[in-house]
Amino acid sequence: MMTADNAHLAAKIREIPDYPKPGVSFKDITPLMQDAAALRDAIDQVARHFAAADIAHVVGIESRGFIFGAAIAYALKAGFIPVRKPGKLPHETHRCEYELEYGTDALEIHTDAVRPGERVLIIDDVLATGGTASAAVELVNKLGGEVAGLGFLIELGFLNGRDRLKGHDVFSLVTY
Amino acid sequence: MMTADNAHLAAKIREIPDYPKPGVSFKDITPLMQDAAALRDAIDQVARHFAAADIAHVVGIESRGFIFGAAIAYALKAGFIPVRKPGKLPHETHRCEYELEYGTDALEIHTDAVRPGERVLIIDDVLATGGTASAAVELVNKLGGEVAGLGFLIELGFLNGRDRLKGHDVFSLVTY
Repeated sequence: MMTADNAHLAAKIREIPDYPKPGVSFKDITPLMQDAAALRDAIDQVARHFAAADIAHVVGIESRGFIFGAAIAYALKAGFIPVRKPGKLPHETHRCEYELEYGTDALEIHTDAVRPGERVLIIDDVLATGGTASAAVELVNKLGGEVAGLGFLIELGFLNGRDRLKGHDVFSLVTY
Repeated sequence: MMTADNAHLAAKIREIPDYPKPGVSFKDITPLMQDAAALRDAIDQVARHFAAADIAHVVGIESRGFIFGAAIAYALKAGFIPVRKPGKLPHETHRCEYELEYGTDALEIHTDAVRPGERVLIIDDVLATGGTASAAVELVNKLGGEVAGLGFLIELGFLNGRDRLKGHDVFSLVTY
């Protein structure tokens, strides 16, 4: 169910078989990013989708979410907030743990990053199971921010991550 | 020797004493990034400085260099290339090792990221000793690319990193 009119973007995503482990086909977005026109189009499409959503801040999830998140923040004339793996942010943080296939992982946000009532757009490169994205939603909500939506370059539809983000505007450019 | 006319940006950089270790004053750029006007101004200043330099690609160094690098790529209508820590890029890479205070570290670039003759702008958040930046220069040169310049949000002038980048256009927004 790949979005038909983004076939030109999908054509720039390189599949790497058996990476990072056997049976997994990794979607390598570096060819898309290094193509100036494709990068610009991807960013503009997301920015256009959320142009009327009154976004104060874009939250980018470490580390590929930094790439698209920062450029989308610039395009929307918004601020940028990094959400990072534990121990990477130097000031006081909130932490949210989330389940992985085996074990747990966690994300952190600076406690002074979002002010109550501010509208926030969350950006990552890939929506898979939705565990990371819903942890980011929880962090924004903990600070009193309002999640105006979530944007992804790629959505792995067969993993149903969208189901964990119900009630939110979830916008993906290329769906597998 | 902080650049006087960027005092408004310097005011948004938070100093964290004794981080990541005693005696070091960490420059936390997250308050600057989350301020939409300051973020935009920082990106625009770098993009303006290199506007006539015919930049095909911006190389961003993991991971804070991703944030500024991608937005600068967007502003310059260039492509974006990530330079990452070992093992993070999924396709064939070149690697460059560089010295740290104790031991060595390394950076990698995809071998198909830059084509011979392409002009590349290298972006990171901080210029310290110049070890990381000169490793990125070496990787771009290895692929036949031409380093058109390097841009940093912060330059720790007392570490003389600029000396290791002689012959290049090195542009920093705030110098300590």
